[in-house]
Amino acid sequence: MNKNAWTAICSAVVMIWAAGDVRAQFAKVEDAIKYRQSVMSVLGTHFTRLGAMVRGETPFVREAFEENASLVATLLKLPWEAFQVAGSDKASALRPEALSQKEDFLKLARANQDEVAKLLAAAKAGELSGIRSAFGAAGASCKACHDSYRRK
Amino acid sequence: MNKNAWTAICSAVVMIWAAGDVRAQFAKVEDAIKYRQSVMSVLGTHFTRLGAMVRGETPFVREAFEENASLVATLLKLPWEAFQVAGSDKASALRPEALSQKEDFLKLARANQDEVAKLLAAAKAGELSGIRSAFGAAGASCKACHDSYRRK
Repeated sequence: MNKNAWTAICSAVVMIWAAGDVRAQFAKVEDAIKYRQSVMSVLGTHFTRLGAMVRGETPFVREAFEENASLVATLLKLPWEAFQVAGSDKASALRPEALSQKEDFLKLARANQDEVAKLLAAAKAGELSGIRSAFGAAGASCKACHDSYRRK
Repeated sequence: MNKNAWTAICSAVVMIWAAGDVRAQFAKVEDAIKYRQSVMSVLGTHFTRLGAMVRGETPFVREAFEENASLVATLLKLPWEAFQVAGSDKASALRPEALSQKEDFLKLARANQDEVAKLLAAAKAGELSGIRSAFGAAGASCKACHDSYRRK
């Protein structure tokens, strides 16, 4: 293998490590808890706004719906590693099984992200019936994870 | 004016009103406070990560830098109306002047958004010297608003 190839591989390894590190770095367990709770709180506000539009409690405005859905999709990329910080099931609503059954937890998280991506696609398409159905599926995928891994 | 023109104008008015409403709707003062504090907390985490890369405390990875800067720019669009909810200067670090001097507060908020937009542009360009200088200006524009409108 020549020097350039080695350099490229080493750069790639450093990049992947550093990118992971940038997401995962929390100095304290409480920082991870505060971070994920803040993400979920903002996300919840905007998901609630989507719900109000879907149910006709506020006027349905396609652009506003897409803007809120896009924000939910962006925020939903953030909190998962913070849920995997050891000890962060103490002093929070997170069940210990979220850590001990990491693969299942992350599977539900990915399913949630997939459903929200479909909701955003439906928002862009703009058909209210498609949006309603995608919103229901997205909400169900939130609930699936909460039911398993959030304390009642 | 013909009927179509009226319909177009009325639709536009409803859209603008509804879009404003979607952003501003907080059932309780505490909801507005929690929302803006959560936004600022997430934003602070990612701005801190940018700072760590700028200062060389973590490896500088352009893609990760851009990702974090993009997130900060997105989050920075959200909290301003929540800072303008009457009574929300009680039980929070917000000074009453943020409400009584709304125009100046929003001017500093817009300046902050402008500097972060420049930081994101610098991140995309990828020159570390430009990024450093834009990061400094963005940080100064955060501080300008905090100095005036956040309690010590």
